[in-house]
Amino acid sequence: MEPITSASNPKVKKWQKLQTKKGRQEQRAFLIEGMHLLEEALKSGLTPQSVIVRDGTGLPEEWLAAIRRQGVPCYVVPPSVFQRLSATQHPQGVAAVLPLLRPPQSLEEVLEKPPVTGLIVDEVQDPGNLGTMVRTAEAFGADFLLLGPGTVDLYNDKVVRASMGSLFRVPVYHGKLEDWLTQLKAQGVTVAAAQVEAPGRLDEFRLPAKVAFLVGNEARGVAPHLAELADVRLKIPMAGAAESLNVAVAAAVLLYERMRQG
Amino acid sequence: MEPITSASNPKVKKWQKLQTKKGRQEQRAFLIEGMHLLEEALKSGLTPQSVIVRDGTGLPEEWLAAIRRQGVPCYVVPPSVFQRLSATQHPQGVAAVLPLLRPPQSLEEVLEKPPVTGLIVDEVQDPGNLGTMVRTAEAFGADFLLLGPGTVDLYNDKVVRASMGSLFRVPVYHGKLEDWLTQLKAQGVTVAAAQVEAPGRLDEFRLPAKVAFLVGNEARGVAPHLAELADVRLKIPMAGAAESLNVAVAAAVLLYERMRQG
Repeated sequence: MEPITSASNPKVKKWQKLQTKKGRQEQRAFLIEGMHLLEEALKSGLTPQSVIVRDGTGLPEEWLAAIRRQGVPCYVVPPSVFQRLSATQHPQGVAAVLPLLRPPQSLEEVLEKPPVTGLIVDEVQDPGNLGTMVRTAEAFGADFLLLGPGTVDLYNDKVVRASMGSLFRVPVYHGKLEDWLTQLKAQGVTVAAAQVEAPGRLDEFRLPAKVAFLVGNEARGVAPHLAELADVRLKIPMAGAAESLNVAVAAAVLLYERMRQG
Repeated sequence: MEPITSASNPKVKKWQKLQTKKGRQEQRAFLIEGMHLLEEALKSGLTPQSVIVRDGTGLPEEWLAAIRRQGVPCYVVPPSVFQRLSATQHPQGVAAVLPLLRPPQSLEEVLEKPPVTGLIVDEVQDPGNLGTMVRTAEAFGADFLLLGPGTVDLYNDKVVRASMGSLFRVPVYHGKLEDWLTQLKAQGVTVAAAQVEAPGRLDEFRLPAKVAFLVGNEARGVAPHLAELADVRLKIPMAGAAESLNVAVAAAVLLYERMRQG
Protein backbone atom coordinates (compact mmCIF):
# COMPACT_ATOMS: atom_id res chain seq x y z
CA MET A 1 0.00 0.00 0.00
CA GLU A 2 1.70 3.15 -1.19
CA PRO A 3 0.34 6.45 0.17
CA ILE A 4 -0.18 9.43 -2.12
CA THR A 5 -0.98 12.66 -0.34
CA SER A 6 -1.05 15.36 -3.02
CA ALA A 7 -3.45 15.96 -5.89
CA SER A 8 -0.47 17.19 -7.90
CA ASN A 9 1.20 13.77 -7.75
CA PRO A 10 1.87 12.75 -11.38
CA LYS A 11 -0.05 9.49 -10.91
CA VAL A 12 -3.15 11.37 -9.83
CA LYS A 13 -2.83 13.68 -12.83
CA LYS A 14 -2.51 10.66 -15.11
CA TRP A 15 -5.56 8.94 -13.59
CA GLN A 16 -7.63 12.09 -13.93
CA LYS A 17 -6.96 12.06 -17.67
CA LEU A 18 -8.76 8.71 -17.83
CA GLN A 19 -11.99 10.62 -17.31
CA THR A 20 -11.88 11.67 -20.97
CA LYS A 21 -12.02 9.49 -24.08
CA LYS A 22 -8.81 11.12 -25.32
CA GLY A 23 -6.96 10.22 -22.13
CA ARG A 24 -8.26 6.66 -22.25
CA GLN A 25 -7.14 6.24 -25.85
CA GLU A 26 -3.70 7.68 -25.12
CA GLN A 27 -3.11 5.51 -22.07
CA ARG A 28 -5.01 2.48 -23.48
CA ALA A 29 -6.66 2.19 -20.07
CA PHE A 30 -9.88 3.11 -18.23
CA LEU A 31 -11.10 3.70 -14.68
CA ILE A 32 -13.65 1.62 -12.82
CA GLU A 33 -15.16 2.57 -9.51
CA GLY A 34 -16.86 0.76 -6.67
CA MET A 35 -16.63 -2.57 -4.89
CA HIS A 36 -19.00 -4.39 -7.23
CA LEU A 37 -17.21 -3.50 -10.45
CA LEU A 38 -13.78 -4.29 -9.01
CA GLU A 39 -15.09 -7.63 -7.79
CA GLU A 40 -16.58 -8.37 -11.22
CA ALA A 41 -13.31 -7.42 -12.92
CA LEU A 42 -11.27 -9.71 -10.66
CA LYS A 43 -13.81 -12.56 -11.06
CA SER A 44 -13.63 -12.11 -14.83
CA GLY A 45 -9.88 -12.72 -14.69
CA LEU A 46 -8.77 -9.16 -15.39
CA THR A 47 -5.65 -7.72 -13.78
CA PRO A 48 -5.84 -4.04 -12.81
CA GLN A 49 -2.81 -1.84 -13.53
CA SER A 50 -3.44 -0.04 -10.23
CA VAL A 51 -5.94 -0.10 -7.40
CA ILE A 52 -6.73 3.20 -5.68
CA VAL A 53 -8.24 3.22 -2.20
CA ARG A 54 -9.59 6.22 -0.29
CA ASP A 55 -7.90 6.51 3.08
CA GLY A 56 -10.12 4.83 5.67
CA THR A 57 -11.97 2.52 3.26
CA GLY A 58 -11.88 -1.12 4.29
CA LEU A 59 -11.34 -3.67 1.55
CA PRO A 60 -12.13 -7.38 2.09
CA GLU A 61 -8.92 -9.22 3.04
CA GLU A 62 -9.38 -11.79 0.23
CA TRP A 63 -9.37 -9.00 -2.37
CA LEU A 64 -6.22 -7.49 -0.99
CA ALA A 65 -4.63 -10.92 -1.07
CA ALA A 66 -5.73 -11.47 -4.69
CA ILE A 67 -4.45 -8.02 -5.69
CA ARG A 68 -1.13 -8.61 -3.93
CA ARG A 69 -0.74 -12.05 -5.51
CA GLN A 70 -1.03 -10.46 -8.94
CA GLY A 71 1.55 -7.82 -8.02
CA VAL A 72 -0.93 -4.98 -8.59
CA PRO A 73 0.25 -1.72 -7.00
CA CYS A 74 -2.27 -0.36 -4.51
CA TYR A 75 -2.35 3.35 -3.66
CA VAL A 76 -4.00 4.99 -0.67
CA VAL A 77 -5.18 8.56 -1.28
CA PRO A 78 -6.90 11.14 0.94
CA PRO A 79 -10.67 11.69 0.41
CA SER A 80 -10.06 15.03 -1.36
CA VAL A 81 -7.88 13.32 -3.96
CA PHE A 82 -10.23 10.37 -4.34
CA GLN A 83 -13.11 12.74 -5.02
CA ARG A 84 -11.23 14.13 -8.03
CA LEU A 85 -11.06 10.69 -9.59
CA SER A 86 -14.65 9.78 -8.83
CA ALA A 87 -17.60 10.32 -11.14
CA THR A 88 -20.20 9.52 -8.48
CA GLN A 89 -21.68 11.65 -5.75
CA HIS A 90 -21.16 9.15 -2.95
CA PRO A 91 -18.10 7.13 -3.93
CA GLN A 92 -17.50 3.83 -2.16
CA GLY A 93 -13.81 4.62 -1.88
CA VAL A 94 -12.24 2.14 -4.27
CA ALA A 95 -11.25 2.54 -7.91
CA ALA A 96 -8.99 0.69 -10.32
CA VAL A 97 -7.23 1.29 -13.61
CA LEU A 98 -7.77 -1.46 -16.17
CA PRO A 99 -6.24 -1.89 -19.62
CA LEU A 100 -8.75 -1.40 -22.47
CA LEU A 101 -10.55 -4.68 -23.06
CA ARG A 102 -9.61 -7.03 -25.88
CA PRO A 103 -11.92 -9.88 -26.90
CA PRO A 104 -10.14 -13.24 -26.92
CA GLN A 105 -11.02 -13.92 -30.58
CA SER A 106 -11.34 -11.83 -33.72
CA LEU A 107 -14.89 -11.06 -34.83
CA GLU A 108 -14.31 -13.16 -37.97
CA GLU A 109 -13.61 -16.14 -35.73
CA VAL A 110 -16.73 -15.50 -33.62
CA LEU A 111 -18.84 -15.48 -36.79
CA GLU A 112 -17.58 -18.84 -38.02
CA LYS A 113 -19.48 -21.39 -35.95
CA PRO A 114 -23.28 -21.28 -35.66
CA PRO A 115 -25.30 -20.41 -33.70
CA VAL A 116 -24.26 -16.75 -33.72
CA THR A 117 -26.18 -13.89 -32.10
CA GLY A 118 -24.89 -10.34 -32.29
CA LEU A 119 -25.94 -6.78 -31.62
CA ILE A 120 -24.75 -3.98 -33.93
CA VAL A 121 -25.01 -0.48 -32.50
CA ASP A 122 -25.25 2.57 -34.77
CA GLU A 123 -24.65 5.96 -33.11
CA VAL A 124 -26.28 5.33 -29.76
CA GLN A 125 -25.53 8.44 -27.69
CA ASP A 126 -26.75 7.76 -24.18
CA PRO A 127 -24.18 5.95 -22.01
CA GLY A 128 -26.89 4.37 -19.86
CA ASN A 129 -28.45 2.86 -22.97
CA LEU A 130 -25.15 1.38 -24.20
CA GLY A 131 -24.25 0.01 -20.77
CA THR A 132 -27.70 -1.55 -20.40
CA MET A 133 -27.33 -3.14 -23.85
CA VAL A 134 -24.02 -4.71 -22.83
CA ARG A 135 -25.66 -6.08 -19.66
CA THR A 136 -28.67 -7.40 -21.59
CA ALA A 137 -26.48 -8.91 -24.31
CA GLU A 138 -24.75 -11.06 -21.71
CA ALA A 139 -28.04 -12.00 -20.04
CA PHE A 140 -29.50 -13.25 -23.31
CA GLY A 141 -26.34 -15.00 -24.43
CA ALA A 142 -25.28 -12.73 -27.31
CA ASP A 143 -21.88 -13.62 -28.74
CA PHE A 144 -20.76 -10.09 -29.54
CA LEU A 145 -21.52 -6.40 -29.76
CA LEU A 146 -20.23 -4.32 -32.66
CA LEU A 147 -20.10 -0.56 -32.16
CA GLY A 148 -19.95 1.93 -35.02
CA PRO A 149 -17.73 5.02 -34.77
CA GLY A 150 -20.59 7.38 -33.80
CA THR A 151 -21.54 5.46 -30.65
CA VAL A 152 -20.71 6.73 -27.16
CA ASP A 153 -17.36 5.52 -25.80
CA LEU A 154 -17.58 2.03 -24.29
CA TYR A 155 -15.30 3.12 -21.42
CA ASN A 156 -17.37 6.17 -20.42
CA ASP A 157 -17.95 5.79 -16.68
CA LYS A 158 -21.75 5.68 -17.08
CA VAL A 159 -21.52 2.92 -19.69
CA VAL A 160 -19.24 0.92 -17.42
CA ARG A 161 -21.57 1.38 -14.46
CA ALA A 162 -24.78 0.48 -16.33
CA SER A 163 -23.12 -2.64 -17.76
CA MET A 164 -22.88 -4.00 -14.19
CA GLY A 165 -19.70 -5.92 -15.04
CA SER A 166 -21.00 -7.58 -18.22
CA LEU A 167 -18.53 -5.34 -20.05
CA PHE A 168 -15.73 -7.55 -18.74
CA ARG A 169 -17.20 -10.68 -20.32
CA VAL A 170 -19.12 -9.81 -23.51
CA PRO A 171 -16.83 -9.44 -26.56
CA VAL A 172 -17.24 -5.89 -27.89
CA TYR A 173 -15.78 -4.90 -31.27
CA HIS A 174 -15.41 -1.51 -32.93
CA GLY A 175 -15.47 -0.79 -36.62
CA LYS A 176 -16.98 0.91 -39.62
CA LEU A 177 -20.46 -0.60 -39.89
CA GLU A 178 -20.71 -0.45 -43.70
CA ASP A 179 -17.62 -2.66 -44.01
CA TRP A 180 -18.66 -5.02 -41.26
CA LEU A 181 -22.18 -5.53 -42.60
CA THR A 182 -20.60 -6.80 -45.83
CA GLN A 183 -18.26 -9.07 -43.87
CA LEU A 184 -21.10 -10.45 -41.73
CA LYS A 185 -23.15 -11.29 -44.80
CA ALA A 186 -20.13 -12.91 -46.43
CA GLN A 187 -19.89 -15.19 -43.40
CA GLY A 188 -23.56 -16.15 -43.63
CA VAL A 189 -24.91 -13.92 -40.85
CA THR A 190 -28.40 -12.51 -41.43
CA VAL A 191 -28.38 -8.83 -40.49
CA ALA A 192 -31.80 -7.76 -39.14
CA ALA A 193 -32.33 -4.01 -38.79
CA ALA A 194 -34.85 -2.94 -36.14
CA GLN A 195 -37.07 -0.16 -37.44
CA VAL A 196 -40.38 1.25 -36.25
CA GLU A 197 -41.79 1.30 -39.79
CA ALA A 198 -40.38 -2.02 -41.01
CA PRO A 199 -42.54 -4.36 -43.13
CA GLY A 200 -41.87 -7.56 -41.11
CA ARG A 201 -42.78 -8.34 -37.50
CA LEU A 202 -40.07 -9.68 -35.20
CA ASP A 203 -42.38 -12.27 -33.65
CA GLU A 204 -43.42 -13.62 -37.06
CA PHE A 205 -39.90 -14.00 -38.42
CA ARG A 206 -38.05 -17.28 -37.91
CA LEU A 207 -34.56 -16.17 -36.88
CA PRO A 208 -31.79 -18.16 -38.63
CA ALA A 209 -28.79 -19.84 -36.97
CA LYS A 210 -26.56 -16.80 -37.49
CA VAL A 211 -28.19 -13.45 -36.84
CA ALA A 212 -27.09 -9.95 -35.88
CA PHE A 213 -29.57 -7.25 -34.88
CA LEU A 214 -28.86 -3.68 -35.94
CA VAL A 215 -30.20 -0.90 -33.68
CA GLY A 216 -29.76 2.83 -34.14
CA ASN A 217 -29.54 6.28 -32.69
CA GLU A 218 -32.07 7.36 -30.02
CA ALA A 219 -33.59 10.13 -32.13
CA ARG A 220 -33.41 8.90 -35.73
CA GLY A 221 -33.10 5.10 -35.47
CA VAL A 222 -30.89 3.07 -37.81
CA ALA A 223 -29.23 5.22 -40.51
CA PRO A 224 -31.02 4.59 -43.84
CA HIS A 225 -27.85 3.61 -45.73
CA LEU A 226 -27.17 0.93 -43.09
CA ALA A 227 -30.77 -0.32 -43.06
CA GLU A 228 -30.46 -0.79 -46.83
CA LEU A 229 -27.46 -3.04 -46.32
CA ALA A 230 -29.44 -5.26 -43.90
CA ASP A 231 -30.92 -8.56 -45.06
CA VAL A 232 -34.25 -7.95 -43.36
CA ARG A 233 -35.96 -5.07 -41.58
CA LEU A 234 -38.09 -5.99 -38.59
CA LYS A 235 -40.44 -4.07 -36.35
CA ILE A 236 -41.27 -4.89 -32.77
CA PRO A 237 -45.08 -5.10 -32.57
CA MET A 238 -46.52 -2.16 -30.64
CA ALA A 239 -49.96 -0.99 -29.59
CA GLY A 240 -51.63 2.35 -30.07
CA ALA A 241 -50.07 5.77 -30.05
CA ALA A 242 -46.52 5.13 -28.80
CA GLU A 243 -43.94 6.39 -31.23
CA SER A 244 -41.11 4.08 -30.40
CA LEU A 245 -39.25 2.15 -27.74
CA ASN A 246 -36.11 3.18 -25.90
CA VAL A 247 -33.21 1.68 -27.87
CA ALA A 248 -31.96 -0.42 -24.93
CA VAL A 249 -35.49 -1.78 -24.52
CA ALA A 250 -35.70 -2.56 -28.25
CA ALA A 251 -32.36 -4.39 -28.12
CA ALA A 252 -33.59 -6.39 -25.12
CA VAL A 253 -36.78 -7.47 -26.88
CA LEU A 254 -34.82 -8.54 -29.99
CA LEU A 255 -32.39 -10.60 -27.91
CA TYR A 256 -35.18 -12.08 -25.77
CA GLU A 257 -37.06 -13.17 -28.89
CA ARG A 258 -33.85 -14.79 -30.14
CA MET A 259 -33.48 -16.67 -26.85
CA ARG A 260 -37.16 -17.64 -26.87
CA GLN A 261 -37.02 -19.08 -30.40
CA GLY A 262 -33.96 -21.05 -29.20
CA MET B 1 -47.20 37.28 -23.00
CA GLU B 2 -46.38 38.64 -19.60
CA PRO B 3 -42.72 39.52 -18.92
CA ILE B 4 -41.08 38.59 -15.63
CA THR B 5 -37.66 40.11 -15.08
CA SER B 6 -36.63 39.15 -11.55
CA ALA B 7 -35.75 35.80 -10.04
CA SER B 8 -37.37 37.01 -6.82
CA ASN B 9 -40.78 37.30 -8.49
CA PRO B 10 -43.19 35.19 -6.39
CA LYS B 11 -44.21 33.15 -9.46
CA VAL B 12 -40.60 32.17 -10.10
CA LYS B 13 -40.19 31.17 -6.44
CA LYS B 14 -43.34 29.08 -6.68
CA TRP B 15 -42.22 27.34 -9.87
CA GLN B 16 -38.82 26.58 -8.37
CA LYS B 17 -40.54 24.70 -5.57
CA LEU B 18 -41.92 22.31 -8.20
CA GLN B 19 -38.42 20.88 -8.49
CA THR B 20 -39.01 18.97 -5.24
CA LYS B 21 -41.56 16.26 -4.51
CA LYS B 22 -42.78 18.25 -1.51
CA GLY B 23 -43.42 21.32 -3.64
CA ARG B 24 -45.23 19.27 -6.27
CA GLN B 25 -47.46 17.68 -3.65
CA GLU B 26 -48.26 21.02 -2.02
CA GLN B 27 -49.11 22.73 -5.30
CA ARG B 28 -50.61 19.58 -6.91
CA ALA B 29 -48.64 20.46 -10.04
CA PHE B 30 -45.39 19.60 -11.85
CA LEU B 31 -42.99 21.13 -14.35
CA ILE B 32 -42.29 19.86 -17.84
CA GLU B 33 -39.54 21.16 -20.06
CA GLY B 34 -38.81 21.21 -23.76
CA MET B 35 -40.72 21.48 -27.02
CA HIS B 36 -41.40 17.77 -27.38
CA LEU B 37 -42.98 17.29 -23.96
CA LEU B 38 -45.10 20.42 -24.27
CA GLU B 39 -46.27 19.26 -27.67
CA GLU B 40 -47.12 15.81 -26.29
CA ALA B 41 -49.00 17.36 -23.36
CA LEU B 42 -51.07 19.57 -25.68
CA LYS B 43 -51.72 16.66 -28.09
CA SER B 44 -52.82 14.55 -25.12
CA GLY B 45 -55.48 17.13 -24.29
CA LEU B 46 -53.84 18.54 -21.17
CA THR B 47 -54.14 22.20 -20.29
CA PRO B 48 -51.05 23.79 -18.70
CA GLN B 49 -51.55 26.15 -15.77
CA SER B 50 -48.73 28.33 -17.12
CA VAL B 51 -46.28 28.31 -20.00
CA ILE B 52 -42.82 29.79 -19.38
CA VAL B 53 -40.69 30.92 -22.30
CA ARG B 54 -37.07 32.04 -22.17
CA ASP B 55 -36.68 35.48 -23.75
CA GLY B 56 -35.65 35.04 -27.39
CA THR B 57 -37.02 31.51 -27.82
CA GLY B 58 -39.30 31.13 -30.83
CA LEU B 59 -42.42 29.02 -30.33
CA PRO B 60 -44.40 27.70 -33.33
CA GLU B 61 -47.33 30.05 -34.04
CA GLU B 62 -49.88 27.21 -33.87
CA TRP B 63 -48.79 26.39 -30.32
CA LEU B 64 -49.13 29.97 -29.21
CA ALA B 65 -52.59 30.04 -30.78
CA ALA B 66 -53.55 26.79 -28.99
CA ILE B 67 -52.25 28.10 -25.68
CA ARG B 68 -54.05 31.43 -26.11
CA ARG B 69 -57.30 29.69 -27.07
CA GLN B 70 -57.18 27.79 -23.80
CA GLY B 71 -56.54 30.98 -21.87
CA VAL B 72 -53.20 29.71 -20.53
CA PRO B 73 -51.04 32.53 -19.15
CA CYS B 74 -47.67 32.69 -20.89
CA TYR B 75 -44.67 34.27 -19.15
CA VAL B 76 -41.45 35.45 -20.76
CA VAL B 77 -38.40 35.29 -18.50
CA PRO B 78 -34.72 36.22 -18.99
CA PRO B 79 -32.25 33.34 -19.59
CA SER B 80 -30.85 33.64 -16.05
CA VAL B 81 -34.30 33.06 -14.57
CA PHE B 82 -35.14 30.25 -16.99
CA GLN B 83 -31.93 28.46 -16.03
CA ARG B 84 -33.12 28.33 -12.42
CA LEU B 85 -36.24 26.44 -13.46
CA SER B 86 -34.43 24.09 -15.79
CA ALA B 87 -33.07 20.67 -14.88
CA THR B 88 -31.17 20.25 -18.15
CA GLN B 89 -27.77 21.55 -19.20
CA HIS B 90 -28.90 22.94 -22.53
CA PRO B 91 -32.54 23.92 -22.07
CA GLN B 92 -34.64 24.50 -25.17
CA GLY B 93 -36.22 27.55 -23.57
CA VAL B 94 -39.77 26.44 -22.93
CA ALA B 95 -41.36 24.96 -19.81
CA ALA B 96 -44.89 24.51 -18.54
CA VAL B 97 -46.68 23.88 -15.27
CA LEU B 98 -49.22 21.04 -15.43
CA PRO B 99 -51.65 19.84 -12.77
CA LEU B 100 -50.79 16.39 -11.36
CA LEU B 101 -52.26 13.73 -13.65
CA ARG B 102 -55.49 11.92 -12.86
CA PRO B 103 -56.49 8.77 -14.75
CA PRO B 104 -59.98 9.02 -16.26
CA GLN B 105 -61.22 5.88 -14.45
CA SER B 106 -60.61 4.31 -11.07
CA LEU B 107 -58.30 1.28 -11.04
CA GLU B 108 -61.24 -0.90 -10.00
CA GLU B 109 -63.03 0.12 -13.19
CA VAL B 110 -59.95 -0.59 -15.33
CA LEU B 111 -59.76 -4.10 -13.86
CA GLU B 112 -63.35 -4.96 -14.70
CA LYS B 113 -63.31 -5.78 -18.39
CA PRO B 114 -60.83 -8.30 -19.84
CA PRO B 115 -58.28 -8.23 -21.36
CA VAL B 116 -56.32 -6.41 -18.68
CA THR B 117 -52.55 -5.91 -18.66
CA GLY B 118 -50.85 -4.05 -15.84
CA LEU B 119 -47.43 -3.33 -14.42
CA ILE B 120 -46.94 -3.10 -10.65
CA VAL B 121 -43.79 -1.33 -9.49
CA ASP B 122 -42.25 -2.03 -6.08
CA GLU B 123 -39.59 0.45 -4.87
CA VAL B 124 -37.91 1.22 -8.16
CA GLN B 125 -35.41 3.99 -7.37
CA ASP B 126 -33.94 5.13 -10.65
CA PRO B 127 -36.03 7.80 -12.40
CA GLY B 128 -34.76 6.76 -15.84
CA ASN B 129 -36.00 3.23 -15.17
CA LEU B 130 -39.47 4.37 -14.12
CA GLY B 131 -39.79 6.78 -17.05
CA THR B 132 -38.71 4.06 -19.48
CA MET B 133 -41.26 1.69 -17.97
CA VAL B 134 -44.05 4.23 -18.53
CA ARG B 135 -42.94 4.65 -22.15
CA THR B 136 -42.72 0.89 -22.69
CA ALA B 137 -46.08 0.28 -21.01
CA GLU B 138 -47.76 2.52 -23.56
CA ALA B 139 -45.85 0.94 -26.46
CA PHE B 140 -47.00 -2.55 -25.49
CA GLY B 141 -50.56 -1.51 -24.71
CA ALA B 142 -50.59 -1.89 -20.93
CA ASP B 143 -53.78 -0.64 -19.31
CA PHE B 144 -52.20 0.70 -16.14
CA LEU B 145 -49.17 1.13 -13.92
CA LEU B 146 -49.49 0.85 -10.16
CA LEU B 147 -46.69 2.37 -8.07
CA GLY B 148 -46.00 1.41 -4.48
CA PRO B 149 -45.05 4.07 -1.91
CA GLY B 150 -41.30 3.35 -2.09
CA THR B 151 -41.00 4.09 -5.81
CA VAL B 152 -39.37 7.27 -7.14
CA ASP B 153 -41.79 10.16 -7.69
CA LEU B 154 -43.64 9.92 -11.02
CA TYR B 155 -43.22 13.69 -11.50
CA ASN B 156 -39.45 13.74 -10.99
CA ASP B 157 -38.05 15.59 -14.03
CA LYS B 158 -35.98 12.58 -15.15
CA VAL B 159 -39.01 10.28 -14.99
CA VAL B 160 -41.02 12.75 -17.04
CA ARG B 161 -38.24 13.09 -19.61
CA ALA B 162 -37.60 9.34 -19.99
CA SER B 163 -41.34 8.69 -20.41
CA MET B 164 -41.21 10.72 -23.67
CA GLY B 165 -44.80 11.88 -23.18
CA SER B 166 -46.32 8.45 -22.47
CA LEU B 167 -46.84 9.73 -18.93
CA PHE B 168 -49.67 11.90 -20.25
CA ARG B 169 -51.58 8.92 -21.64
CA VAL B 170 -50.90 5.79 -19.57
CA PRO B 171 -53.08 5.59 -16.42
CA VAL B 172 -50.75 5.53 -13.40
CA TYR B 173 -52.11 4.72 -9.93
CA HIS B 174 -50.49 4.95 -6.51
CA GLY B 175 -51.22 2.79 -3.52
CA LYS B 176 -50.14 0.32 -0.90
CA LEU B 177 -49.21 -2.78 -2.88
CA GLU B 178 -50.28 -5.31 -0.22
CA ASP B 179 -53.83 -3.96 -0.34
CA TRP B 180 -53.93 -3.68 -4.09
CA LEU B 181 -52.66 -7.20 -4.70
CA THR B 182 -55.63 -8.48 -2.73
CA GLN B 183 -57.97 -6.25 -4.72
CA LEU B 184 -56.51 -7.34 -8.06
CA LYS B 185 -56.94 -10.99 -7.18
CA ALA B 186 -60.51 -10.34 -6.02
CA GLN B 187 -61.21 -8.93 -9.46
CA GLY B 188 -59.77 -12.00 -11.21
CA VAL B 189 -56.39 -10.54 -12.16
CA THR B 190 -53.45 -12.98 -12.10
CA VAL B 191 -50.51 -11.28 -10.42
CA ALA B 192 -47.20 -12.55 -11.86
CA ALA B 193 -44.08 -11.60 -9.91
CA ALA B 194 -40.87 -11.40 -11.97
CA GLN B 195 -37.99 -12.99 -10.09
CA VAL B 196 -34.56 -14.19 -11.17
CA GLU B 197 -34.92 -17.41 -9.16
CA ALA B 198 -38.57 -18.17 -9.93
CA PRO B 199 -39.66 -21.73 -10.69
CA GLY B 200 -41.65 -20.97 -13.87
CA ARG B 201 -40.41 -19.56 -17.17
CA LEU B 202 -42.20 -16.56 -18.68
CA ASP B 203 -42.12 -17.99 -22.19
CA GLU B 204 -43.65 -21.30 -21.06
CA PHE B 205 -46.52 -19.76 -19.13
CA ARG B 206 -49.79 -19.09 -20.90
CA LEU B 207 -50.77 -15.62 -19.70
CA PRO B 208 -54.48 -15.32 -18.78
CA ALA B 209 -56.90 -12.62 -19.94
CA LYS B 210 -56.26 -10.46 -16.89
CA VAL B 211 -52.66 -10.22 -15.79
CA ALA B 212 -50.48 -7.78 -13.86
CA PHE B 213 -46.70 -8.13 -13.72
CA LEU B 214 -44.94 -7.22 -10.49
CA VAL B 215 -41.36 -5.92 -10.75
CA GLY B 216 -39.11 -4.79 -7.93
CA ASN B 217 -36.27 -2.68 -6.68
CA GLU B 218 -33.03 -2.49 -8.73
CA ALA B 219 -30.88 -4.08 -6.04
CA ARG B 220 -33.12 -6.59 -4.28
CA GLY B 221 -35.94 -7.36 -6.73
CA VAL B 222 -39.55 -7.85 -5.61
CA ALA B 223 -39.95 -7.73 -1.82
CA PRO B 224 -40.46 -11.30 -0.54
CA HIS B 225 -43.74 -10.50 1.26
CA LEU B 226 -45.17 -9.16 -2.02
CA ALA B 227 -43.87 -12.08 -4.09
CA GLU B 228 -45.71 -14.37 -1.67
CA LEU B 229 -48.96 -12.58 -2.41
CA ALA B 230 -48.51 -13.14 -6.16
CA ASP B 231 -50.38 -15.92 -7.96
CA VAL B 232 -47.34 -17.03 -9.91
CA ARG B 233 -43.63 -16.29 -9.92
CA LEU B 234 -41.94 -16.20 -13.31
CA LYS B 235 -38.36 -15.88 -14.46
CA ILE B 236 -37.20 -14.45 -17.74
CA PRO B 237 -34.98 -17.12 -19.35
CA MET B 238 -31.33 -16.07 -19.32
CA ALA B 239 -28.03 -17.49 -20.52
CA GLY B 240 -24.81 -18.00 -18.66
CA ALA B 241 -23.30 -15.84 -15.98
CA ALA B 242 -25.46 -12.71 -16.00
CA GLU B 243 -26.98 -12.03 -12.62
CA SER B 244 -30.07 -10.17 -13.68
CA LEU B 245 -31.63 -7.73 -16.08
CA ASN B 246 -32.14 -4.02 -15.61
CA VAL B 247 -35.67 -3.63 -14.19
CA ALA B 248 -36.91 -1.51 -17.12
CA VAL B 249 -35.59 -4.17 -19.48
CA ALA B 250 -37.33 -6.91 -17.48
CA ALA B 251 -40.62 -4.99 -17.57
CA ALA B 252 -40.27 -4.57 -21.33
CA VAL B 253 -39.71 -8.28 -21.90
CA LEU B 254 -42.75 -9.16 -19.75
CA LEU B 255 -44.98 -6.74 -21.64
CA TYR B 256 -43.58 -7.81 -25.03
CA GLU B 257 -44.32 -11.46 -24.21
CA ARG B 258 -47.85 -10.42 -23.26
CA MET B 259 -48.28 -8.65 -26.58
CA ARG B 260 -46.75 -11.57 -28.48
CA GLN B 261 -49.10 -14.12 -26.88
CA GLY B 262 -51.95 -11.77 -27.87
